[in-house]
Amino acid sequence: MYQTFDVTARPEQGPPRLAALRKELAAEGLDGFLVPRADAHQGEYVAPHDERLSWLTGFTGSAGFCAVLKETAGVFIDGRYRTQVKRQVAAEYTPVPWPEVQLADWLKEQLPGGGKVGFDPWLHAAGQITALEKELTGSGITLAQCENLVDRIWEDQPAPPMNPVTAHPLDYAGESAADKCARLAKGLRKAGQAAAVITLPDSIMWLLNIRGADVARNPVAHGFAILHGDARVDLFMAAEKLEGLHGHFDGSVTVHAPEDFLKAAAALNGSVASDSGTLPQIVADALGDRMVPAGDPCALPKARKNAAEIAGSAAAHLRDGAAIVEMLAWLDTQAPGTITEIGVVKKLEALRSADPALRDISFETIAGTGENGAVMHYRVTEETDTRLEDGHLLVMDSGGQYLDGTTDITRTIAIGTPGGEERAAYTRVLQGMIAMSRLRWPKGLAGRDIECIGRMPLWLAGQDFNHGLGHGVGAYLSVHEGPQRLARTSHVPLEPGMILSNEPGYYREGAFGIRIENLLVVEAAPALDTSDPERDMLCWRTLTFAPIDRRLVDASMLTADEKDWLDSYHSEVSEKIGPLLSPAARAWLDAATAPL
Amino acid sequence: MYQTFDVTARPEQGPPRLAALRKELAAEGLDGFLVPRADAHQGEYVAPHDERLSWLTGFTGSAGFCAVLKETAGVFIDGRYRTQVKRQVAAEYTPVPWPEVQLADWLKEQLPGGGKVGFDPWLHAAGQITALEKELTGSGITLAQCENLVDRIWEDQPAPPMNPVTAHPLDYAGESAADKCARLAKGLRKAGQAAAVITLPDSIMWLLNIRGADVARNPVAHGFAILHGDARVDLFMAAEKLEGLHGHFDGSVTVHAPEDFLKAAAALNGSVASDSGTLPQIVADALGDRMVPAGDPCALPKARKNAAEIAGSAAAHLRDGAAIVEMLAWLDTQAPGTITEIGVVKKLEALRSADPALRDISFETIAGTGENGAVMHYRVTEETDTRLEDGHLLVMDSGGQYLDGTTDITRTIAIGTPGGEERAAYTRVLQGMIAMSRLRWPKGLAGRDIECIGRMPLWLAGQDFNHGLGHGVGAYLSVHEGPQRLARTSHVPLEPGMILSNEPGYYREGAFGIRIENLLVVEAAPALDTSDPERDMLCWRTLTFAPIDRRLVDASMLTADEKDWLDSYHSEVSEKIGPLLSPAARAWLDAATAPL
Repeated sequence: MYQTFDVTARPEQGPPRLAALRKELAAEGLDGFLVPRADAHQGEYVAPHDERLSWLTGFTGSAGFCAVLKETAGVFIDGRYRTQVKRQVAAEYTPVPWPEVQLADWLKEQLPGGGKVGFDPWLHAAGQITALEKELTGSGITLAQCENLVDRIWEDQPAPPMNPVTAHPLDYAGESAADKCARLAKGLRKAGQAAAVITLPDSIMWLLNIRGADVARNPVAHGFAILHGDARVDLFMAAEKLEGLHGHFDGSVTVHAPEDFLKAAAALNGSVASDSGTLPQIVADALGDRMVPAGDPCALPKARKNAAEIAGSAAAHLRDGAAIVEMLAWLDTQAPGTITEIGVVKKLEALRSADPALRDISFETIAGTGENGAVMHYRVTEETDTRLEDGHLLVMDSGGQYLDGTTDITRTIAIGTPGGEERAAYTRVLQGMIAMSRLRWPKGLAGRDIECIGRMPLWLAGQDFNHGLGHGVGAYLSVHEGPQRLARTSHVPLEPGMILSNEPGYYREGAFGIRIENLLVVEAAPALDTSDPERDMLCWRTLTFAPIDRRLVDASMLTADEKDWLDSYHSEVSEKIGPLLSPAARAWLDAATAPL
Repeated sequence: MYQTFDVTARPEQGPPRLAALRKELAAEGLDGFLVPRADAHQGEYVAPHDERLSWLTGFTGSAGFCAVLKETAGVFIDGRYRTQVKRQVAAEYTPVPWPEVQLADWLKEQLPGGGKVGFDPWLHAAGQITALEKELTGSGITLAQCENLVDRIWEDQPAPPMNPVTAHPLDYAGESAADKCARLAKGLRKAGQAAAVITLPDSIMWLLNIRGADVARNPVAHGFAILHGDARVDLFMAAEKLEGLHGHFDGSVTVHAPEDFLKAAAALNGSVASDSGTLPQIVADALGDRMVPAGDPCALPKARKNAAEIAGSAAAHLRDGAAIVEMLAWLDTQAPGTITEIGVVKKLEALRSADPALRDISFETIAGTGENGAVMHYRVTEETDTRLEDGHLLVMDSGGQYLDGTTDITRTIAIGTPGGEERAAYTRVLQGMIAMSRLRWPKGLAGRDIECIGRMPLWLAGQDFNHGLGHGVGAYLSVHEGPQRLARTSHVPLEPGMILSNEPGYYREGAFGIRIENLLVVEAAPALDTSDPERDMLCWRTLTFAPIDRRLVDASMLTADEKDWLDSYHSEVSEKIGPLLSPAARAWLDAATAPL
């Protein structure tokens, strides 16, 4: 079993740790210290060694940070975690809505007379520190690099991860590491850059066609890389992790100890490309004015999946879809009031694990029933585990890391007889999801230019949801992959091959939650009879196949086009997934995918 | 008659003027000279004195510029003018698609060895020059301020305008000039600014509750103003224009000669707010590092119309709607093949002019029939005048400057029997227009966040249009008013009181054009039964009332909600406009607004 149901942090553990940290502040002559939910690689998931934020505060969300001052400690959390944070932190911590309240403004308010705020330069990106310093100009507040003060007080802090790396076969990768390095090195030379410093683990995995196991749910290994303009790569990674690779690297890759990375970066000649949004401040300091904020050169090539990656992802989605349908069929045989959220998570993981290509789940399964469904990133524990009762909606958001692809799917399921408000809201969420799935749009647009299409049906009812419509997804890599996003923060044009989620939702705190999610891949739109000949347009191909709960659809709210889409999608689900199912599940699927 | 049908520029006039300009280039030792379609106030319309771009090139569009080099002369035009520019400029000029091709990139391509490009520092905004210089870094191309070389060769250049200014009554303005100055001055003091330099004529008109007549179609007078932190205003405007004001200004406004403006700006103490996007480079030079790019302080207050301005605008729209309905009714009595575009423009202007509150048309009426409809900003001349034939679509885009408000309305009308493709495309355009009209959206969003809603029905058919969905509109001021826009370039949150156009279109070059436009005002959305209690949402109230041509609507393509919207809109048109009409027009309106 990958997932556990332990309570990993408790509110009452926070206050004594906060007191200990404040002693360190005093010892260092600091007025504050920043505790991000980050490691040196700025990934979404961190190893237990780096779970400083939840250890200190109790808050276990995947994004956020704590600003510890002498008198106050602000826990900055985004819209997804407003409900969750209230359950998880003690009264000594003040939840701060972020990004509505910016750290600089909060610091200025809390420290009107100025002050010195410490931070660990490995855990903060250069761009973040630069922006913060700019915003603090004239406030009397200064930032000071220092040792990590949480590490100093965390007595039983787990060791950094040290897990084996494996080769990612060419059949799945679709392009050899040597070809990728040569292609990217050419780009560096063309831009007049001598090298690129790469600190994002999924970029390193993609570039070298390897996968790791240093972080739960993400097949990545911690390390750093320098790609040179002549296509040589210096890889800074513990040799112990690489023992199983057996000659996967050709002579152009040289392995070094991670401790040598900073020195090597400092010794580079010429301009060095890097992503100032994720490069640790300490590395930026080592590079000095040789650093060019050109971005991670792997980011876009990695986001644009090639034919092999798309084929692998599509294949993984079919098998994953079969597991989901077995799950949904089983769920329908369980009477309301008889099973709990943990039962759902266990059953689903067992069904997925039957696939020999499964290497992990792609994130902690969210199975929230009733009011737990309104906690967007709910992780069930033994303490919160709730029975699925008649009238509940169950939000089930889950995914698998398969050798050939990464999946992420959400279905919301009626337990017993659903209420009218739930069905109406569900239908609106579905309408948004269908509108985005059916969309064609002119080439060159970014996620932010089209995101509202998936919200409009909710808006018309005075409703909305506090998260983006969708995120990028990797090919047997991160389930949240940038830079492509369906969100107002994303200015990166969508391009063929990019995989994104389409997941509108609706959440009523204390009552119920709804989310419906498919993964989609961007394609060139085939011409229609009506198409303007000079206009290049893009469209989506759906990768996820699993039924959408017809009991929650109020068909009278749907337009003919929306009904057609749903019927046609269900027919495709039946055709693609049916043959992979047990007889019982297949019979269930026939009914679940019948036309409206 | 406000509108004329003269050909104001001819392609064949361009080449000798270009040759003369190149002699001046040589005399000045320059490799190029920039000729924008701009005056020192960066308005959309310019006085005949400032029509340098059309005088030189023949291109009469409302936006664009020419970069004259020794060998080439690029005419940079946006998507609206791709068709028009081909008709208007001689072969010596090269149309350049802009902003797809940026000036800096074009200059670098044309001047690979570098060069010196001259510009008139009154006609280019500081922000524009700064950005251009940055983009040219390292190219060997430099920008050089110089005298206006077009003025030097333009022998019969008209004199700058010198027309009377009138007071704008408080009943229409809704807030006294003194209160506006006090309110804005308070904002300056709060931001630590000693003064603001205002160079946009419509901002000066708004601030001082005056209107002018220096530029056709816009009730503005040319001038400059400095608003001081103590609410005093220095107005730099020819005293001759102000003779009819009879004590409208109280003691806090001091009038100076326009020639004294630069000196006064240079003499200011403390930091000075201004809009770097429109402030002439020469004024920025005078301010030096005292300039704070805080924007024009009038821009947002002017955009957020108060209750009196909205009431005035709504009243003007009803009378304007009556003129439009009389026009449409008359048009339907004219057999195909019997009238021309000029006949349409004359009749419409005559109908509008019957209103004693009309002071001007708000822009040159666009009346394009058949393939002329595909020229987005078509202005009919004696030479292009075309007969309205059976099967044509007529695009009629027009507006009035009334004392109580500015209107802008487009209707597309079937002449005789419309074709199937035309009806299908018209219906899609209408669907986009309805989708935007019906929208509710969360407070805080900008035009760019919702613009695609008005394009989606076209996108689904592989179609689109090359202009923004809508623009801001003033209250008896500019018909194109910033900063509010429904366009991908607009990051300014929409706020209650802002008036915008909603005008999707479709254009098939050489065949036909379609555009449907209403003006809308942003309002706080009333709560619905389904509304999330914590969510502030905004919606539109429609100001424009005139029927939408039912003969062009393919009702089978509409959803029930779309039909309901159209029927309900038509019922409102009938109710509001019917009582203002002649008996014949009223009978026509009854049929034109019958339910689908």
